[in-house]
Amino acid sequence: MADWLAALDRRAELRARAGLTRTLRPRAAGDAVVDLAGNDYLGLATHPEVTAAAARALSGYGLGATGSRLVRGSTDAHHALEDTLADWLGTDRALVFSSGYLANLAAVRGVVGPRTLLVSDAHNHASLIDGCRISGAETVVTPHADVDAVAAALAAAPGRPAVVVTESVFSVDGDLAPLAALHAVARRHGALLLVDDAHALGVTGPAGAGAVAAAGLSGEPDVVVTATLSKALGGAGGVVAGPAEFVRHLVETGRTFIFDTALPPAVAAGVAAAARLARAGDDLRAELADRAALAVRRLDAAALTVSAPDAAVVSVTAPSPEAATAWAADCRDRGVAVGCFRPPSTPDSRSRLRLTISAGVARADYERALDVIVACAPVSARSEPGLRAPQSRTEVAL
Amino acid sequence: MADWLAALDRRAELRARAGLTRTLRPRAAGDAVVDLAGNDYLGLATHPEVTAAAARALSGYGLGATGSRLVRGSTDAHHALEDTLADWLGTDRALVFSSGYLANLAAVRGVVGPRTLLVSDAHNHASLIDGCRISGAETVVTPHADVDAVAAALAAAPGRPAVVVTESVFSVDGDLAPLAALHAVARRHGALLLVDDAHALGVTGPAGAGAVAAAGLSGEPDVVVTATLSKALGGAGGVVAGPAEFVRHLVETGRTFIFDTALPPAVAAGVAAAARLARAGDDLRAELADRAALAVRRLDAAALTVSAPDAAVVSVTAPSPEAATAWAADCRDRGVAVGCFRPPSTPDSRSRLRLTISAGVARADYERALDVIVACAPVSARSEPGLRAPQSRTEVAL
Repeated sequence: MADWLAALDRRAELRARAGLTRTLRPRAAGDAVVDLAGNDYLGLATHPEVTAAAARALSGYGLGATGSRLVRGSTDAHHALEDTLADWLGTDRALVFSSGYLANLAAVRGVVGPRTLLVSDAHNHASLIDGCRISGAETVVTPHADVDAVAAALAAAPGRPAVVVTESVFSVDGDLAPLAALHAVARRHGALLLVDDAHALGVTGPAGAGAVAAAGLSGEPDVVVTATLSKALGGAGGVVAGPAEFVRHLVETGRTFIFDTALPPAVAAGVAAAARLARAGDDLRAELADRAALAVRRLDAAALTVSAPDAAVVSVTAPSPEAATAWAADCRDRGVAVGCFRPPSTPDSRSRLRLTISAGVARADYERALDVIVACAPVSARSEPGLRAPQSRTEVAL
Repeated sequence: MADWLAALDRRAELRARAGLTRTLRPRAAGDAVVDLAGNDYLGLATHPEVTAAAARALSGYGLGATGSRLVRGSTDAHHALEDTLADWLGTDRALVFSSGYLANLAAVRGVVGPRTLLVSDAHNHASLIDGCRISGAETVVTPHADVDAVAAALAAAPGRPAVVVTESVFSVDGDLAPLAALHAVARRHGALLLVDDAHALGVTGPAGAGAVAAAGLSGEPDVVVTATLSKALGGAGGVVAGPAEFVRHLVETGRTFIFDTALPPAVAAGVAAAARLARAGDDLRAELADRAALAVRRLDAAALTVSAPDAAVVSVTAPSPEAATAWAADCRDRGVAVGCFRPPSTPDSRSRLRLTISAGVARADYERALDVIVACAPVSARSEPGLRAPQSRTEVAL
């Protein structure tokens, strides 16, 4: 019976030899690290209005929601948050889940009916991939950001209901899906478009309403949007926004909605406060864009291979998983937290550092952090100046 | 393109005609309802030590964890909670997830390797069923609580790795799985036992350590335990507890662990405080047992069909989905919240009210609530006195 544990140990040993060991490193409250690894893009997780709203709800409702949304878990805080999000995103309705992962599972499963074909981008997040898997629907994976491939997949299934599934800002490289073109192709074939806007909500679009809004697709009847409430909104949970009929469908049939304890009311209240701040945060978004451009200039000048950021995620290529781990560890030793992404958390076989820019970090700390990243870069991460091609999104994506 | 919305509407209409419409009803903070519907078994969601611990962490860390556990989401609060839970449950290690649903998906997927056979109880929770589905493993569903059927399924697959998957206290009827017998059968066949202890943790077992501990199976190397942190612990999130090798496996490969934002630190801190209170709460558990017995006596005396509760869940049979809805609505109008379970949230075709007993409700309110449930019962829910058989667990389960 202990065979299974020995087998798990052997697999762990294989991962260790490949440089793919993962280690949990707890942080203390208020640690002095300059954070270019978290997703608190606007610095709202610690904003006094956000924590005060959460504290008030904690005092009023208690800690947990005490049940699923349909039993005892729905509070005024959840409904107010859903109204706020639907209004911001310009959709009929919004439905809050206890995590973005569960929101994506419900959204993908919810759009699937008999004979539905799913057309899924090769770089999609694990939660979308799992949504496709658990839906049981036939799924065609198309090359990353390839509108022609999506069109071909739809054309090859005439008369079948179909759904194009994509992230907007991709989580690892920070590049933006061609949403308007994908929607045009989807509509031409009578297909739906399902977009995970997690890394765009609060960061891009008019009043921070995300990449779907930026593409002019808000409220379209053939578009479903999902997002997390744990990134620019500084909290936890997820949301599915779209036509009222679809939200009702999820309320009545969505397994990860019905059979899950609701998000804590205090979190819902804090996120609602964060959404109001994010919506009014054009100054914060301008600062993010400026910092992203600065990162590209600084890292490019140091001959590092850096993505062209469409939002607040910047990807820097590392020569190997081991080198990525060592690079990130050196940065951490010098007080800078960066994301370290290795297979299988990368959509290709390449490892990289991921910098997520936060307006909550002091400007001087941010600039110093870029210096640290450059100073800690392994020699092999620097391309030969004579060989360097112009930086482009596809460089990292390919 | 609006065809899909019309199709969703038609399905909603069919559900409405079958009495299966589900409606979200928000509650206000501190509403005066007597709650026999939520899962706050020990009343800890509003315990001052719990909310104070959460408030301190909210102030120290901010609202969200700002990232996945492996990126920036792990805090001292998460690690302290995991140590507390592992010590309480008597396992090597414990790993916290942002929801119980995601914990179950990870646990089931984590025990599956090549050729694994899953043997899953017919009444298992949606999250376990989805875990079986998404694992891709062959799954045999055995009749509810049927040890012989489990033994037969294992015997029919000699030499294959296998895992027996069950809840301990089943969520709808509140009956207890024959854990010791299931473990004996599993071990005889070299299979693992995976137990969702969500409705038992804090409620049953020595020092409230749950049904696995009550069955003497704590820390066995072939047992994996999952639980929610949102029921007796009054918070949110889930946990997988078991051998260190298995927890390491989940940290390094569990998709719903790696690719999900961590539980908010304030929730982790509040749950840790709740766990300490629950562990010391033998007086609360005695009160729960007394109230469960009172519910059975009171409802049985009124000729209602009531389950024999093994924990703090009591199931009362309703004659139809519509009758269940009306019954629950009448109770709500009189200030008593009860769970209303209809297909597909019931493991059979029968609708029922589910009463979840909370030590946080004043004793007088609880007794009055039982009177309300009896007074609101539809005539057709009462069995003829002459025809009534002795109440037993199987009566509801069949």
